Amino acid sequence: MLKLYDNIASVAAQKVRLTLHEKGRCWDTETVNLRNGEVMNPDYLRLNPSGVVPTLIHDGEVLIESTAIMEYLDEVFPDPPLKPASPLARHRMRLWTKRIDEDVQRATGNLSQAVYIRYAHVDKSAEELDAYFARMPDKDREVRQRSAIRLGLDAPEVALALWVFSRLIDDIDRQASATPWLVGDAFTLADIACAPYVARLEMLAMERMWTDGRRPAMARWWETVKMRSSFRAQIQDKFPTTVRATMLERGQAAWPRVRQRLGLV
Amino acid sequence: MLKLYDNIASVAAQKVRLTLHEKGRCWDTETVNLRNGEVMNPDYLRLNPSGVVPTLIHDGEVLIESTAIMEYLDEVFPDPPLKPASPLARHRMRLWTKRIDEDVQRATGNLSQAVYIRYAHVDKSAEELDAYFARMPDKDREVRQRSAIRLGLDAPEVALALWVFSRLIDDIDRQASATPWLVGDAFTLADIACAPYVARLEMLAMERMWTDGRRPAMARWWETVKMRSSFRAQIQDKFPTTVRATMLERGQAAWPRVRQRLGLV
Repeated sequence: MLKLYDNIASVAAQKVRLTLHEKGRCWDTETVNLRNGEVMNPDYLRLNPSGVVPTLIHDGEVLIESTAIMEYLDEVFPDPPLKPASPLARHRMRLWTKRIDEDVQRATGNLSQAVYIRYAHVDKSAEELDAYFARMPDKDREVRQRSAIRLGLDAPEVALALWVFSRLIDDIDRQASATPWLVGDAFTLADIACAPYVARLEMLAMERMWTDGRRPAMARWWETVKMRSSFRAQIQDKFPTTVRATMLERGQAAWPRVRQRLGLV
Repeated sequence: MLKLYDNIASVAAQKVRLTLHEKGRCWDTETVNLRNGEVMNPDYLRLNPSGVVPTLIHDGEVLIESTAIMEYLDEVFPDPPLKPASPLARHRMRLWTKRIDEDVQRATGNLSQAVYIRYAHVDKSAEELDAYFARMPDKDREVRQRSAIRLGLDAPEVALALWVFSRLIDDIDRQASATPWLVGDAFTLADIACAPYVARLEMLAMERMWTDGRRPAMARWWETVKMRSSFRAQIQDKFPTTVRATMLERGQAAWPRVRQRLGLV
């Protein structure tokens, strides 16, 4: 029995959905609302002390943290394998999944907050904001989110986020010039780990970072990822068109400033 | 053939030394100086693009990122095993190693910078600092390090670091009340991952965070870790007494303010 506490918009949850789909598994979904504080309810915090999605329940056991969940799923459902066979290639794969967890996840949060999520909070009073953050267990997240609400695209975290994304896209481009997938000839957890984050950039109208002709191998890799049924079913087709339209609109409005901070002008 | 680009004081490198020692391996060491910018030399950056230690060379292959290196070493040298046998226990183990990488590593850097490393930089001119940071590839690290140099223990990063450490110590205490090691009955990469970070707190005279009687299981776990020959050889006995004395002195000087920010007063 597999049950996923999920949210369509969560990049981390998307990694787990892609993995479950690639493994050909069926699972139950319980959607957790990320905006109204449901994720910080005591009942949910008992399952997931950081108050984030995803949480996976497998035969009664609680699993958290998307990358650790992906590694687990590949071990309990080995077919088809999503980790390479050799220890060296697995090491290379883990450099990608780790980088996503440590730098890119944070960058995505900071960028998404500054570009569109902040609009759910900008009209709140100081008291309402304090009440909202009082329930958030992760103080680091609170500091970054408050910065995005206050400063928007001028937040210092945004410059750092764009630097992280530029490097990621450069490195995907470099690797995809050499091999079809990020760790050689086979699709692995490394490709799965990157996909939702690149999809987020695209949804925010920032695909110009690689469609300007300067990163052709990145553009090719991305088109191949998007052709997979897992991507179409678990990301592409899951977003309601209204949500997509809002993200695109906010992203387009942000682009001139983003482009400037990227140093493209 | 194993060769480790190492520095005695690097917590991440200590994890790899502990793992190699527990596996009974011999290795060559090349010490990389972290203070004079040697770690940012182009030759070293070709091996390790983030400009950090450790880097491990195994039979000509370059391996970076301490946790990914530990996983690799356990796969190529399976005896004695340092990962548990069941996927579920391995998942639990990875929650510890991941937490160290994502939160505790950053907290340790921020705290160490604020308590003692900043004194290597505080007397530099703005131009000297700019020259130093111009060679640092990680802009996020630069921002945090500049904050520590400027503000010392009043840096906002210090409050966050202490919050991260308090939670870590609480959680080790909780787990060690239930099982001898962090993932059950056997010593694993989870214990190895935590050890250097707890050792750092102790070297900075901050062991009062768990020796005040409120975290007895944590204190017991820590004494058991320190009795292992790997810990004694790779951490305890490696630090020159002069370095230890300086760290202890700076740590003791910092304690009143740290204690205050910890909310213990």
